[in-house]
Amino acid sequence: MLENNSVGLVAPQTAHFDTPLTLKSGAVLPQFDLVFETYGQLNADKSNAVLICHALSGNHHVAGKYHESDKNPGWWDNLVGPDKPLDTNKFFVIGLNNLGGCHGSTGASSINPATQQPWGSTFPVLTVEDWVNSQALLADYLGIEQLAAVVGGSLGGMQALQWTLSYPDRVKHGLVIASAPNLTAQNIAFNEVARQAIITDPEFHNGDYYAHGVVPRRGLRIARMLGHITYLSDDAMGAKFGRTLKNKVGNQLQYNFDVEFEMESYLRYQGDKFAGEFDANTYLRMTRALDYFDPALNYDGDLSKALANVKAQFLVVSFTSDWRFSPARSREIVKALLDNELTVSYAEVTAAHGHDAFLMPDPHYHAILRSYLNKIDVNNTKLRGVV
Amino acid sequence: MLENNSVGLVAPQTAHFDTPLTLKSGAVLPQFDLVFETYGQLNADKSNAVLICHALSGNHHVAGKYHESDKNPGWWDNLVGPDKPLDTNKFFVIGLNNLGGCHGSTGASSINPATQQPWGSTFPVLTVEDWVNSQALLADYLGIEQLAAVVGGSLGGMQALQWTLSYPDRVKHGLVIASAPNLTAQNIAFNEVARQAIITDPEFHNGDYYAHGVVPRRGLRIARMLGHITYLSDDAMGAKFGRTLKNKVGNQLQYNFDVEFEMESYLRYQGDKFAGEFDANTYLRMTRALDYFDPALNYDGDLSKALANVKAQFLVVSFTSDWRFSPARSREIVKALLDNELTVSYAEVTAAHGHDAFLMPDPHYHAILRSYLNKIDVNNTKLRGVV
Repeated sequence: MLENNSVGLVAPQTAHFDTPLTLKSGAVLPQFDLVFETYGQLNADKSNAVLICHALSGNHHVAGKYHESDKNPGWWDNLVGPDKPLDTNKFFVIGLNNLGGCHGSTGASSINPATQQPWGSTFPVLTVEDWVNSQALLADYLGIEQLAAVVGGSLGGMQALQWTLSYPDRVKHGLVIASAPNLTAQNIAFNEVARQAIITDPEFHNGDYYAHGVVPRRGLRIARMLGHITYLSDDAMGAKFGRTLKNKVGNQLQYNFDVEFEMESYLRYQGDKFAGEFDANTYLRMTRALDYFDPALNYDGDLSKALANVKAQFLVVSFTSDWRFSPARSREIVKALLDNELTVSYAEVTAAHGHDAFLMPDPHYHAILRSYLNKIDVNNTKLRGVV
Repeated sequence: MLENNSVGLVAPQTAHFDTPLTLKSGAVLPQFDLVFETYGQLNADKSNAVLICHALSGNHHVAGKYHESDKNPGWWDNLVGPDKPLDTNKFFVIGLNNLGGCHGSTGASSINPATQQPWGSTFPVLTVEDWVNSQALLADYLGIEQLAAVVGGSLGGMQALQWTLSYPDRVKHGLVIASAPNLTAQNIAFNEVARQAIITDPEFHNGDYYAHGVVPRRGLRIARMLGHITYLSDDAMGAKFGRTLKNKVGNQLQYNFDVEFEMESYLRYQGDKFAGEFDANTYLRMTRALDYFDPALNYDGDLSKALANVKAQFLVVSFTSDWRFSPARSREIVKALLDNELTVSYAEVTAAHGHDAFLMPDPHYHAILRSYLNKIDVNNTKLRGVV
């Protein structure tokens, strides 16, 4: 059964692009598909479109369900829907699977038309800038000249920020949540361990595992287990799992390497699930795009200079227990935006869940988003007439 | 050339134990060897012995060198030597390789006398209590009834604390550095990811890789890379590596998965080095001993009750940037000791290096150790006569 404030049943669409896309690396994609979903109605002057950018393992299925008994709504369903903080009565919301993704958009597992084989290792490394360029083409495809807002958490927040840089006239508001102006050495280190787990898996076959009928499941599993540690706070893990034994009979321990603690059980479950669903080449590219994102790189590290041409208004949100992208990193963004005399709202939300907090329906957090989004001015006269 | 305040050239010794040792798990080791080194002279009444317990990847080679041109002194050489904070003019210092280790003491790679094959997967899982029991047998072997002190950092600190619990009359001072009364869920999670990287390596062969002439190098490498992230602080990594590119030509990026950042290069180097030296079965057992350490387990989590029979005096040291074993965890130990009206000195050292700080010659930290150790009363009249 669908909730009252769900966007209801949805279906993905595919946009095909025949014009070659030159990437930041210099590589050229001769053609590509982007899979996307939309929720709500585009208004007459096309001023109410909001693009949602996904993070490392996300996709285009942001809200709604695929069938009546679907138990897994879109990944940001708690945010997007009629009367929800990102209100689909007001906004036309677009979710897409990023280029290089593994949920339908062109990626390493897609067929390279030149060889009729999967791209595999030859699929290029993408950057946040490349994604934003491809998303701008999707906006063109939908006939949208200017987005009311681009919204994203984590890697998605980097895309929202990049939009305001790459297309200052095409985005009115950037909502940059649980994000950072670049990765720290520690962030890069975690990514590198995850990548090395995948790359050294004997079934990775240098990225061309499709041809061998295998997937580097072991490596992907380790990568995901590690990721989960960084998504949660130490305290949240302590509260949820603590030192609780999995098969507690008194305090009898097993003295082996099977699951002994609930914590281990959770991680193995998450790792196994992900390894059966996600493409390793996509994982590698998503983490590399994170590593590379650094708008200040060519401005001697001066983020304020890097953002000099930005015109959008901003909401920046961070979470106190997020040690992956700490509030201090969000404040760097805020400072650089303010240095450019831009209009910025900043909220540091007290939340226990660490980086994952950006996905959770924390009332304070959602109230902040609702309030900000409510104030965005769009011309919905015609839309309201229809409803 | 040897420094003036080095213990000089040293050589390991081996103590063989023929009496079966019953472990906490119920398993029995029919016989075992412990490799150890000593520095300084045992005094006439044998009151000046200090045992150093090693952490996850440590061993018996605490101080000194094996030959004149040896470039790698013992792992705590900055602490132990004549006129150093742990002064070998005063103390007789013992370092050993823990049971289950891979530096000469009996472990999984040793030959099981019953089968004449390496123990491999059949080598038992050990606990901190087991190590302390085996260390007490080594003290017996050396004719030492009571240790002036047991000193350890990290997992070594857990052993120091356990000594005061298991043998309250055999240890006068416990020096518990950068340690914790048990692991948090996050600590266990990191250990589990490391173990799973090893166990799922196709060359692990369920722990019996010796028979196959291979080692699970890939898994061990990942485990070590991950470990290194947790040994350093985010800030220390930032200061040391930041986002510095490895092969910087302008800001030209490679857009592939080879080493791009200095951070990656460091981690790969550390991982490769370790994977060529360390035994995977030992790594598994060391991490499991960490997981299991929890003196309060059978006291409803009440550490104060668990420590009721302790008699020793303590120095507890933590480091502000240590997020693996944070100062808060050391304060838990201090509180429980104070609840039992024991004499405790506690120092929270401002240090940037994270968990690794306990191995570094920070002047403030070393001054604290020197001061505490100087005040320990031993009867060295005869020893001084000899010198």
